[in-house]
Amino acid sequence: MGGQNRFLFSEMVWGMKMESFSKRLKSAVARTRGCLCVGLDVDLRKMPKDVPADGPGALRFCRAIIEATRPYAAAYKANLAFFESLGAHGFEILELLRQSIPYDTLFIADAKRGDIGNTSEAYAKALYGILKSDSVTLSPYMGKDSVGPFLKYPGTCSFVLCLTSNPSAEDFQLQALASGEKLYQKVAKTAPGWAKDQAGEVGLVVGATKADYVKDLRALAPDTAFLVPGVGAQGGDLQAVLQAGRARDGAGILVNVSRSILYASSEHDYAEAARIEAQRLVEEMKPFFS
Amino acid sequence: MGGQNRFLFSEMVWGMKMESFSKRLKSAVARTRGCLCVGLDVDLRKMPKDVPADGPGALRFCRAIIEATRPYAAAYKANLAFFESLGAHGFEILELLRQSIPYDTLFIADAKRGDIGNTSEAYAKALYGILKSDSVTLSPYMGKDSVGPFLKYPGTCSFVLCLTSNPSAEDFQLQALASGEKLYQKVAKTAPGWAKDQAGEVGLVVGATKADYVKDLRALAPDTAFLVPGVGAQGGDLQAVLQAGRARDGAGILVNVSRSILYASSEHDYAEAARIEAQRLVEEMKPFFS
Repeated sequence: MGGQNRFLFSEMVWGMKMESFSKRLKSAVARTRGCLCVGLDVDLRKMPKDVPADGPGALRFCRAIIEATRPYAAAYKANLAFFESLGAHGFEILELLRQSIPYDTLFIADAKRGDIGNTSEAYAKALYGILKSDSVTLSPYMGKDSVGPFLKYPGTCSFVLCLTSNPSAEDFQLQALASGEKLYQKVAKTAPGWAKDQAGEVGLVVGATKADYVKDLRALAPDTAFLVPGVGAQGGDLQAVLQAGRARDGAGILVNVSRSILYASSEHDYAEAARIEAQRLVEEMKPFFS
Repeated sequence: MGGQNRFLFSEMVWGMKMESFSKRLKSAVARTRGCLCVGLDVDLRKMPKDVPADGPGALRFCRAIIEATRPYAAAYKANLAFFESLGAHGFEILELLRQSIPYDTLFIADAKRGDIGNTSEAYAKALYGILKSDSVTLSPYMGKDSVGPFLKYPGTCSFVLCLTSNPSAEDFQLQALASGEKLYQKVAKTAPGWAKDQAGEVGLVVGATKADYVKDLRALAPDTAFLVPGVGAQGGDLQAVLQAGRARDGAGILVNVSRSILYASSEHDYAEAARIEAQRLVEEMKPFFS
């Protein structure tokens, strides 16, 4: 990105920050007529032909994916694990990647953080203050005061893990409580309330591999933004999720797809193949957002 | 640290890696006759006089604390949030800090990570593979498969959050399950079993502000290593914790103290004041490890 673009970028972002995350999400859904979040979950072992399997290669790869998919993407999600696994240069590359995200598209730092108050404050500074993410993912295990420091940032949405798409979600999330409800339901009923009187919003991470549960969770949290991973490689059913998962405003949902877009082709045409897959997904979404 | 020291350091660390974390912990407890973990939770707003409130200042500060407290410290714990809040240079500073830890002292990366398998693999690579931590902290919310990738590293111990020391621990951790036990008890009974047939060990994070619970948890997990935060600034009672918390081998516990050591003085004598506070704490511990 050239100097002029970067100036424009920051101007726009700071202008947009005055709007709530929900409003920006609604605009992004209207713009794309979809709710696609492209997960930039880079795996160096899967890089396409002739793209170096290192940090600069990953940045080039992600930028090409962004450029190709931006008409279809309401949001991009970067998984911090990948950047941390690059060592000392990881955060720098992440910052450059963040600057490549178009201003009208949301940027989610998938970090799954959560710690005691003063520590969460430092994580919030890193992810919202420095990286200028629009959104992060957090773990609920330590409760309200571990999420609070993230909610000081206006225009943001902190997605709290509720029901995840991995098989071991059942170890604790699906445990029945003495009250009759399950732990993930308790999280869904509790966490959105943490945003009351705060500058930022709270959303929920709701795995798509459990499409039956999406409807149930939407009933418990009718206006809360859902981030739904697990469609595609992890096996979730897109149409069932959209049928059940939209919020009362007709938006309020982001469906994350990573591998089937990123690795649609391992040849030189990987960006074009990613574009075709993103377009196909959004075509499938359109009936739900018209 | 000079070149020769660094060579020695890596030689020793790789030699020591052949030993299990538990054995190394037992040696460190025998060496110090205490179980003190010094938490390097740097807060730039609290830096002593004349120490610059930036990354290099923080590194200098931590190194002086390590130098002063090393006869008393069985372990050091670095909270990743602080280093991330420094932006792009944070990880580099963390790596330099890690290299300053004496070879016979354990190094814990307090990260509270946890994600689906391929993502946890990347986090494990960052924290064990690159940073060469002896131990990390993890969140249990996503279950066994989110912890598994960390257990591939021999000589390590992954401490899973069980009962934390913050007030909002009660939001979910203290919820009663239909089975009668509480969520944190379920975690204590489940997580140590994840280490079966793995190269690395699983420990538990058990907040000291709930000293009554420590005994209960030790009964549930008699041989599991406990990392106990919350003594000092957070109000836990050291003697009660040690009475209740040692493992069957007489060690198996690390009590983390951060603020009361790090900020024992805000003047030029901060390192000496830290040494005195660390020594005082270990004197209090000695009767339990003789």
